[in-house]
Amino acid sequence: MVNAPKANAVIGQSGGPTAVINESLIGIIEQACMHAEIENIYGAIHGVSGIVTENFVDLKKLSVETLDVVAASPCSALGSTRDKPDDEYCERIFKVFAKYNVRYFFYIGGNDSANTAYIVNKAALKSGYDLRAFHVPKTIDNDLLVTDHCPGYGTAAKFVASAFIGDDLDNRALPGVKINVIMGRHAGFLTAASVLARQREDDGPHLVYVPEKGISLAQVLADVEAVYSKLGRCVIAKSEGMRDVNGITWAEKIVKQTEMDAHGNIQLSGSGILADFLAASIRSKLKIKRVRADTFGYLQRSFAGVRSMVDAHEARICGRYAVTLAMQHKSGSVAIRRLNGPNDYQIELFRTELENVAEKTKRMPDEFINAEGNGVTEAFIKYARPLVGNLPKTAYLGNYPRIQAD
Amino acid sequence: MVNAPKANAVIGQSGGPTAVINESLIGIIEQACMHAEIENIYGAIHGVSGIVTENFVDLKKLSVETLDVVAASPCSALGSTRDKPDDEYCERIFKVFAKYNVRYFFYIGGNDSANTAYIVNKAALKSGYDLRAFHVPKTIDNDLLVTDHCPGYGTAAKFVASAFIGDDLDNRALPGVKINVIMGRHAGFLTAASVLARQREDDGPHLVYVPEKGISLAQVLADVEAVYSKLGRCVIAKSEGMRDVNGITWAEKIVKQTEMDAHGNIQLSGSGILADFLAASIRSKLKIKRVRADTFGYLQRSFAGVRSMVDAHEARICGRYAVTLAMQHKSGSVAIRRLNGPNDYQIELFRTELENVAEKTKRMPDEFINAEGNGVTEAFIKYARPLVGNLPKTAYLGNYPRIQAD
Repeated sequence: MVNAPKANAVIGQSGGPTAVINESLIGIIEQACMHAEIENIYGAIHGVSGIVTENFVDLKKLSVETLDVVAASPCSALGSTRDKPDDEYCERIFKVFAKYNVRYFFYIGGNDSANTAYIVNKAALKSGYDLRAFHVPKTIDNDLLVTDHCPGYGTAAKFVASAFIGDDLDNRALPGVKINVIMGRHAGFLTAASVLARQREDDGPHLVYVPEKGISLAQVLADVEAVYSKLGRCVIAKSEGMRDVNGITWAEKIVKQTEMDAHGNIQLSGSGILADFLAASIRSKLKIKRVRADTFGYLQRSFAGVRSMVDAHEARICGRYAVTLAMQHKSGSVAIRRLNGPNDYQIELFRTELENVAEKTKRMPDEFINAEGNGVTEAFIKYARPLVGNLPKTAYLGNYPRIQAD
Repeated sequence: MVNAPKANAVIGQSGGPTAVINESLIGIIEQACMHAEIENIYGAIHGVSGIVTENFVDLKKLSVETLDVVAASPCSALGSTRDKPDDEYCERIFKVFAKYNVRYFFYIGGNDSANTAYIVNKAALKSGYDLRAFHVPKTIDNDLLVTDHCPGYGTAAKFVASAFIGDDLDNRALPGVKINVIMGRHAGFLTAASVLARQREDDGPHLVYVPEKGISLAQVLADVEAVYSKLGRCVIAKSEGMRDVNGITWAEKIVKQTEMDAHGNIQLSGSGILADFLAASIRSKLKIKRVRADTFGYLQRSFAGVRSMVDAHEARICGRYAVTLAMQHKSGSVAIRRLNGPNDYQIELFRTELENVAEKTKRMPDEFINAEGNGVTEAFIKYARPLVGNLPKTAYLGNYPRIQAD
């Protein structure tokens, strides 16, 4: 525990946006306003790049109404960046911090952002600059270590589940095979969330492929054939990071294959290639006529108007907690611990060291993936459902008993 | 005006689902229950194909709770079909109608479904079978004639606008060029609805391309360059039916071009090809590094949890009105007339002949498209906004004044 200096604070947002990252921003602002040690609160536009270019907005000047609208807005209201500071970059950050008397630094982002806070903090310690560097977690991939789950995931998961609720009904209405490609290059949490859409025994997704478990095209085709012959339709959730049994991503394999074939200027590593490849394979190998494919894309992290209330709340309190921690510690990352009540969902927040989160990636544990590698377990559903909250309830009448003619 | 017979009714749903098509279904059921002339109400599973296979559910047996859940469910709760009856098919329909004493036929769908009702009605007249055949409109494309707009469009438009609200903020956070491909092969109404996302002067979409106005790649590249050089970013809404100046769709041109180049079994007419082609062109011709592309796909018509209340309401009353009409007429299609109040939105329903709607396609009128063919007019916004209703309000702080160092 060290005395908190009287000085200014900088808040930045980094990496890919989420739909609730601004809740964390507002959480930091409202908590910072409660501590006399923090004088001014500067928002760095486009993360660390806004620090080195002295590109700041005065966050204490925002009205309560504006704070509310910002909190409810998807994506990074301060702008984001992919910059990863090195030693020279850190030097420039400190110069600006010194010029503006900044001794509190809050950085909202994923494992790269935790690493930025870590590097900046290390450099501060080395140069004897009294800085408090805190990382506030956000990702839609849910791939940060230490924390039980990440703010941003619950809302993205709700979007994916809501999409599958509709898409599965669409597939019932006009049966065939439907493939949906979900974000997540290394971790399958978001793809797995598609199963929360299920309300009836024969609801899709019927097959779920995550990056953690390699699977061959032959196996996928066998899986699809089995579902299709039973139900006359098949809905597939497929991670963009899906891998072959050798650990190579399907995306890499497909691009390699098509690069050899194509001589034009069409870029085959495009947005739909992963979905289209599997669709074409199912059509040609299984002779199924109606095969459709979608790639959900950026809507998963930015769509306006769909949010998990639990997720929004947790994003907010993670921001607030970072400020509380900054009054007592030099650095850290905010993490969520799940408290195992008998039937309810409860959490507490705690501090972990930046280096425990920086640059590291969490994957789905084995217990969340079924033995066949084509679905998820009840343990995953139990883990994910409270983070998403209620989903729209639906009915499908095609399952109802038929009338008999006299 | 003719006396309505005492007999049974069949309801079917046809074509691509919408998120409010079940509101029309429930509207028909609840109104039919009010008329003693209609004895039983049969739901045909998968449209006309469910009629000829005698695949019916008893819709009078559904509880009020179930009716409510069905109404709120996206996609066709009775299942859908792409079948288009010919004379022989109609013969089979009548046999089943006679067997079940069906003299009321309500078909919810687009212009193909209106045509089905039209053909069945013509055949009924010819064979002297006393049938009332009514079409209830639904499309997300908003491309039916006579009616001011179609149930289903407002909700799909709300989905698209909500997606662009988030996507434009995403593009502000991490600037570059973003291309979004929207459904609508012949009509640009849904693509145009993306502009409802705009809340600030420099909000995207900055360029909007609809199928009604042909445009060359060179012109699109010039448009993108102009926006990008001014704003440092560019968000594009692009219809899947976008055409060249010669009226050929871009999709056809691209597939032709790539078919010549490719020898493998990769299908290039895939889900992302249109988006990827433009993205690749912008990267190579304009030397812009960060170019991303999404194809919104089936979520536009099926996503659960996002709906326009106006749209849901109108879908419901169109269903009810079809039953009211069936008590007085032999056939017809329900249409919406907009009443021009000074500042408010009001409608009334009316009957039009099936042949006025059957197989015909409405396109965006010229007054809705700007002279450059890269955007829409205020007249379109005035037309579309009431159908969508309120959208999430957002804030972006990167537009706020910067602080000045002392």
